[in-house]
Amino acid sequence: MSDGHYFEDFQVGQRIETRGATLTEAAIVDFGLQFDPQPFHIDTAAAADSPYGGLIASGFHTAALCFRLFIDQGLLASCSLGSPGIEKLRWLAPVRPGDTLRCTTEVAEARRSESTPTRGLVTLDYSAHNQHGDTVLTMRIVHLLGCRPADN
Amino acid sequence: MSDGHYFEDFQVGQRIETRGATLTEAAIVDFGLQFDPQPFHIDTAAAADSPYGGLIASGFHTAALCFRLFIDQGLLASCSLGSPGIEKLRWLAPVRPGDTLRCTTEVAEARRSESTPTRGLVTLDYSAHNQHGDTVLTMRIVHLLGCRPADN
Repeated sequence: MSDGHYFEDFQVGQRIETRGATLTEAAIVDFGLQFDPQPFHIDTAAAADSPYGGLIASGFHTAALCFRLFIDQGLLASCSLGSPGIEKLRWLAPVRPGDTLRCTTEVAEARRSESTPTRGLVTLDYSAHNQHGDTVLTMRIVHLLGCRPADN
Repeated sequence: MSDGHYFEDFQVGQRIETRGATLTEAAIVDFGLQFDPQPFHIDTAAAADSPYGGLIASGFHTAALCFRLFIDQGLLASCSLGSPGIEKLRWLAPVRPGDTLRCTTEVAEARRSESTPTRGLVTLDYSAHNQHGDTVLTMRIVHLLGCRPADN
Protein backbone atom coordinates (compact mmCIF):
# COMPACT_ATOMS: atom_id res chain seq x y z
CA MET A 1 0.00 0.00 0.00
CA SER A 2 2.33 2.73 -1.24
CA ASP A 3 -0.24 5.49 -0.90
CA GLY A 4 -1.48 4.05 2.39
CA HIS A 5 -4.19 5.04 4.78
CA TYR A 6 -3.52 7.81 7.29
CA PHE A 7 -5.16 9.71 10.14
CA GLU A 8 -6.99 11.96 7.68
CA ASP A 9 -8.68 8.94 6.08
CA PHE A 10 -10.60 7.94 9.22
CA GLN A 11 -14.02 9.61 9.18
CA VAL A 12 -16.29 9.60 12.23
CA GLY A 13 -19.14 7.17 11.60
CA GLN A 14 -17.20 5.09 9.07
CA ARG A 15 -17.70 1.33 9.58
CA ILE A 16 -15.28 -1.40 8.59
CA GLU A 17 -16.41 -5.03 8.35
CA THR A 18 -13.84 -7.80 8.53
CA ARG A 19 -13.76 -11.33 7.18
CA GLY A 20 -14.53 -14.16 9.60
CA ALA A 21 -12.33 -16.57 11.52
CA THR A 22 -13.36 -19.82 13.19
CA LEU A 23 -12.14 -20.57 16.71
CA THR A 24 -11.23 -24.23 16.89
CA GLU A 25 -11.11 -26.26 20.08
CA ALA A 26 -7.34 -26.57 19.58
CA ALA A 27 -6.87 -22.82 19.33
CA ILE A 28 -9.02 -22.22 22.43
CA VAL A 29 -7.14 -24.77 24.54
CA ASP A 30 -3.70 -23.66 23.27
CA PHE A 31 -4.37 -20.04 24.13
CA GLY A 32 -5.86 -21.01 27.48
CA LEU A 33 -2.85 -23.12 28.40
CA GLN A 34 -0.56 -20.22 27.56
CA PHE A 35 -2.37 -17.26 29.08
CA ASP A 36 -5.62 -18.14 30.83
CA PRO A 37 -5.55 -21.71 32.23
CA GLN A 38 -8.97 -21.69 33.84
CA PRO A 39 -10.85 -25.02 33.63
CA PHE A 40 -13.54 -23.71 31.26
CA HIS A 41 -10.80 -22.68 28.77
CA ILE A 42 -8.58 -25.78 28.83
CA ASP A 43 -10.46 -28.83 30.16
CA THR A 44 -13.47 -30.07 28.19
CA ALA A 45 -14.69 -32.31 31.05
CA ALA A 46 -14.45 -29.60 33.72
CA ALA A 47 -15.93 -27.07 31.29
CA ALA A 48 -18.98 -29.31 30.78
CA ASP A 49 -19.62 -29.10 34.54
CA SER A 50 -19.07 -25.33 34.66
CA PRO A 51 -21.85 -22.73 34.35
CA TYR A 52 -20.91 -22.44 30.66
CA GLY A 53 -21.75 -26.09 29.95
CA GLY A 54 -18.68 -26.53 27.77
CA LEU A 55 -15.39 -25.11 26.64
CA ILE A 56 -15.30 -21.36 25.94
CA ALA A 57 -12.54 -19.13 24.59
CA SER A 58 -10.55 -16.87 26.90
CA GLY A 59 -11.71 -13.27 26.62
CA PHE A 60 -8.10 -12.21 26.02
CA HIS A 61 -8.13 -14.57 23.03
CA THR A 62 -11.34 -13.21 21.51
CA ALA A 63 -10.18 -9.61 22.03
CA ALA A 64 -6.84 -10.28 20.33
CA LEU A 65 -8.53 -12.16 17.48
CA CYS A 66 -11.00 -9.32 16.95
CA PHE A 67 -8.07 -6.90 16.68
CA ARG A 68 -6.24 -9.24 14.29
CA LEU A 69 -9.27 -9.37 12.01
CA PHE A 70 -9.30 -5.57 11.88
CA ILE A 71 -5.53 -5.32 11.35
CA ASP A 72 -5.90 -7.59 8.32
CA GLN A 73 -8.01 -4.89 6.66
CA GLY A 74 -4.76 -2.92 6.25
CA LEU A 75 -6.03 0.45 7.47
CA LEU A 76 -3.39 0.71 10.21
CA ALA A 77 -0.49 -0.60 8.11
CA SER A 78 0.94 2.77 7.08
CA CYS A 79 -0.02 4.92 10.02
CA SER A 80 -0.21 3.05 13.35
CA LEU A 81 2.03 4.43 16.06
CA GLY A 82 0.56 2.32 18.87
CA SER A 83 -2.16 2.87 21.41
CA PRO A 84 -2.49 4.35 24.89
CA GLY A 85 -5.10 1.77 25.83
CA ILE A 86 -8.59 0.28 25.81
CA GLU A 87 -11.40 2.35 27.29
CA LYS A 88 -13.85 -0.44 28.00
CA LEU A 89 -14.05 -4.06 27.01
CA ARG A 90 -17.18 -6.20 27.44
CA TRP A 91 -17.41 -9.96 27.06
CA LEU A 92 -21.11 -10.30 26.26
CA ALA A 93 -21.55 -13.93 25.24
CA PRO A 94 -19.46 -17.11 25.38
CA VAL A 95 -17.40 -18.07 22.32
CA ARG A 96 -17.35 -21.83 21.79
CA PRO A 97 -15.30 -24.21 19.62
CA GLY A 98 -16.46 -23.91 16.02
CA ASP A 99 -17.83 -20.40 16.42
CA THR A 100 -16.93 -18.02 13.63
CA LEU A 101 -16.26 -14.42 14.61
CA ARG A 102 -16.38 -11.32 12.46
CA CYS A 103 -15.55 -7.84 13.65
CA THR A 104 -17.21 -4.52 12.91
CA THR A 105 -15.17 -1.43 13.66
CA GLU A 106 -16.68 2.05 13.76
CA VAL A 107 -14.78 5.32 13.94
CA ALA A 108 -16.08 7.06 17.07
CA GLU A 109 -13.72 10.05 17.32
CA ALA A 110 -10.83 11.52 15.35
CA ARG A 111 -8.77 14.49 16.43
CA ARG A 112 -5.38 15.81 15.41
CA SER A 113 -2.79 16.12 18.14
CA GLU A 114 -2.34 19.73 19.28
CA SER A 115 1.19 19.14 20.52
CA THR A 116 2.32 17.08 17.50
CA PRO A 117 0.29 18.03 14.43
CA THR A 118 1.79 15.21 12.36
CA ARG A 119 -0.18 12.77 14.51
CA GLY A 120 -3.80 12.18 15.42
CA LEU A 121 -5.85 10.15 17.88
CA VAL A 122 -8.58 7.96 16.45
CA THR A 123 -11.04 6.15 18.72
CA LEU A 124 -12.42 2.93 17.27
CA ASP A 125 -15.39 0.96 18.60
CA TYR A 126 -14.88 -2.73 17.91
CA SER A 127 -17.61 -5.32 18.12
CA ALA A 128 -17.25 -9.02 17.40
CA HIS A 129 -20.20 -11.14 16.27
CA ASN A 130 -20.65 -14.88 15.94
CA GLN A 131 -22.32 -16.84 13.14
CA HIS A 132 -25.73 -16.41 14.81
CA GLY A 133 -25.41 -12.63 14.80
CA ASP A 134 -24.87 -12.43 18.56
CA THR A 135 -22.46 -9.73 19.70
CA VAL A 136 -19.85 -11.54 21.80
CA LEU A 137 -17.47 -8.68 22.55
CA THR A 138 -17.23 -4.91 22.35
CA MET A 139 -14.20 -2.73 23.03
CA ARG A 140 -13.16 0.88 22.48
CA ILE A 141 -9.50 1.43 21.58
CA VAL A 142 -7.74 4.76 21.12
CA HIS A 143 -5.15 4.61 18.33
CA LEU A 144 -2.26 6.99 17.79
CA LEU A 145 -1.91 7.44 14.02
CA GLY A 146 0.44 9.28 11.73
CA CYS A 147 -0.91 11.94 9.37
CA ARG A 148 -0.38 11.77 5.63
CA PRO A 149 3.18 12.84 4.74
CA ALA A 150 3.42 16.08 2.76
CA ASP A 151 4.81 14.24 -0.30
CA ASN A 152 2.10 11.57 -0.37
CA MET B 1 -6.36 -26.54 46.99
CA SER B 2 -9.16 -28.57 48.53
CA ASP B 3 -10.32 -25.77 50.80
CA GLY B 4 -9.83 -23.21 48.03
CA HIS B 5 -10.17 -19.49 47.87
CA TYR B 6 -13.64 -17.99 47.41
CA PHE B 7 -15.40 -14.64 47.07
CA GLU B 8 -15.34 -14.14 50.85
CA ASP B 9 -11.53 -14.37 50.87
CA PHE B 10 -11.00 -11.25 48.76
CA GLN B 11 -10.64 -8.23 51.04
CA VAL B 12 -10.67 -4.69 49.69
CA GLY B 13 -7.13 -3.31 49.81
CA GLN B 14 -5.48 -6.74 49.70
CA ARG B 15 -2.48 -6.83 47.34
CA ILE B 16 -1.12 -9.90 45.57
CA GLU B 17 2.37 -9.90 44.05
CA THR B 18 3.25 -12.40 41.34
CA ARG B 19 6.48 -14.00 40.24
CA GLY B 20 8.18 -12.57 37.14
CA ALA B 21 8.28 -13.70 33.52
CA THR B 22 10.71 -12.60 30.83
CA LEU B 23 9.38 -11.68 27.41
CA THR B 24 11.74 -13.07 24.80
CA GLU B 25 12.08 -11.75 21.27
CA ALA B 26 10.69 -15.07 20.02
CA ALA B 27 7.59 -14.78 22.20
CA ILE B 28 6.99 -11.17 21.13
CA VAL B 29 7.30 -11.96 17.41
CA ASP B 30 5.23 -15.17 17.66
CA PHE B 31 2.37 -13.39 19.42
CA GLY B 32 2.60 -10.48 16.98
CA LEU B 33 2.44 -12.76 13.96
CA GLN B 34 -0.64 -14.45 15.37
CA PHE B 35 -2.67 -11.52 16.68
CA ASP B 36 -1.04 -8.12 16.14
CA PRO B 37 1.20 -8.13 13.05
CA GLN B 38 2.25 -4.50 13.19
CA PRO B 39 5.86 -3.84 12.11
CA PHE B 40 7.03 -2.82 15.59
CA HIS B 41 5.83 -6.19 16.96
CA ILE B 42 7.17 -8.55 14.26
CA ASP B 43 9.98 -6.93 12.24
CA THR B 44 13.16 -5.96 14.09
CA ALA B 45 14.44 -3.83 11.20
CA ALA B 46 11.18 -1.90 10.75
CA ALA B 47 10.84 -1.61 14.52
CA ALA B 48 14.28 0.02 14.74
CA ASP B 49 13.02 2.74 12.39
CA SER B 50 9.73 3.16 14.29
CA PRO B 51 9.16 5.72 17.06
CA TYR B 52 9.85 2.90 19.55
CA GLY B 53 13.42 2.39 18.25
CA GLY B 54 13.09 -1.38 18.41
CA LEU B 55 10.79 -4.32 18.81
CA ILE B 56 8.05 -4.02 21.47
CA ALA B 57 5.46 -6.51 22.68
CA SER B 58 1.83 -6.26 21.57
CA GLY B 59 -0.32 -4.75 24.29
CA PHE B 60 -2.68 -7.71 23.97
CA HIS B 61 0.30 -9.92 24.78
CA THR B 62 1.37 -7.99 27.89
CA ALA B 63 -2.22 -7.84 29.17
CA ALA B 64 -2.69 -11.60 28.75
CA LEU B 65 0.69 -12.32 30.35
CA CYS B 66 -0.13 -10.09 33.31
CA PHE B 67 -3.35 -12.04 33.82
CA ARG B 68 -1.53 -15.36 33.49
CA LEU B 69 0.92 -14.33 36.21
CA PHE B 70 -2.01 -13.57 38.52
CA ILE B 71 -3.84 -16.80 37.63
CA ASP B 72 -0.72 -18.74 38.63
CA GLN B 73 -1.20 -17.49 42.21
CA GLY B 74 -4.19 -19.86 42.40
CA LEU B 75 -6.69 -17.45 43.96
CA LEU B 76 -9.20 -17.88 41.14
CA ALA B 77 -8.80 -21.66 40.80
CA SER B 78 -11.77 -22.67 42.95
CA CYS B 79 -14.09 -19.75 42.43
CA SER B 80 -13.78 -18.07 39.04
CA LEU B 81 -16.98 -17.97 37.01
CA GLY B 82 -15.68 -15.63 34.32
CA SER B 83 -15.73 -11.89 33.83
CA PRO B 84 -18.04 -9.32 32.29
CA GLY B 85 -15.10 -7.24 31.11
CA ILE B 86 -12.22 -4.83 31.56
CA GLU B 87 -13.01 -1.33 32.75
CA LYS B 88 -9.89 0.44 31.56
CA LEU B 89 -6.58 -0.76 30.24
CA ARG B 90 -3.53 1.51 29.87
CA TRP B 91 -0.32 0.69 28.06
CA LEU B 92 2.05 3.05 29.85
CA ALA B 93 5.51 2.06 28.64
CA PRO B 94 6.94 -0.17 25.90
CA VAL B 95 7.85 -3.76 26.77
CA ARG B 96 10.99 -4.89 24.96
CA PRO B 97 12.67 -8.27 24.37
CA GLY B 98 14.37 -9.38 27.57
CA ASP B 99 12.13 -7.33 29.85
CA THR B 100 10.85 -9.17 32.91
CA LEU B 101 7.33 -8.37 34.03
CA ARG B 102 5.74 -8.86 37.42
CA CYS B 103 2.16 -8.11 38.26
CA THR B 104 0.64 -6.52 41.36
CA THR B 105 -3.09 -7.06 41.83
CA GLU B 106 -5.11 -5.08 44.35
CA VAL B 107 -8.69 -5.79 45.41
CA ALA B 108 -10.59 -2.57 44.64
CA GLU B 109 -14.19 -3.65 45.32
CA ALA B 110 -16.02 -6.77 46.48
CA ARG B 111 -19.77 -7.14 46.66
CA ARG B 112 -22.07 -10.13 46.88
CA SER B 113 -24.61 -10.52 44.12
CA GLU B 114 -28.10 -9.45 45.22
CA SER B 115 -29.83 -11.63 42.67
CA THR B 116 -27.61 -14.70 43.21
CA PRO B 117 -26.22 -14.67 46.75
CA THR B 118 -23.95 -17.66 46.03
CA ARG B 119 -21.88 -15.38 43.81
CA GLY B 120 -20.00 -12.12 44.16
CA LEU B 121 -18.31 -9.51 41.98
CA VAL B 122 -14.73 -8.64 42.78
CA THR B 123 -12.97 -5.78 41.01
CA LEU B 124 -9.22 -6.23 40.72
CA ASP B 125 -6.71 -3.52 39.74
CA TYR B 126 -3.80 -5.10 37.90
CA SER B 127 -0.50 -3.36 37.27
CA ALA B 128 2.51 -4.85 35.52
CA HIS B 129 6.03 -3.61 36.20
CA ASN B 130 9.33 -4.23 34.44
CA GLN B 131 12.73 -4.96 35.96
CA HIS B 132 13.43 -1.21 36.30
CA GLY B 133 10.31 -0.69 38.38
CA ASP B 134 8.45 1.12 35.58
CA THR B 135 4.73 0.45 35.41
CA VAL B 136 4.09 -0.78 31.86
CA LEU B 137 0.39 -1.62 32.07
CA THR B 138 -2.62 -1.13 34.31
CA MET B 139 -6.07 -2.66 33.94
CA ARG B 140 -9.20 -3.05 36.05
CA ILE B 141 -11.08 -6.33 35.63
CA VAL B 142 -14.38 -7.28 37.23
CA HIS B 143 -14.48 -10.97 38.19
CA LEU B 144 -17.55 -13.07 38.87
CA LEU B 145 -16.65 -15.42 41.72
CA GLY B 146 -18.37 -18.22 43.56
CA CYS B 147 -18.94 -17.96 47.31
CA ARG B 148 -17.63 -20.58 49.72
CA PRO B 149 -19.88 -23.66 49.65
CA ALA B 150 -21.78 -24.29 52.88
CA ASP B 151 -19.89 -27.55 53.52
CA ASN B 152 -16.43 -26.02 53.07
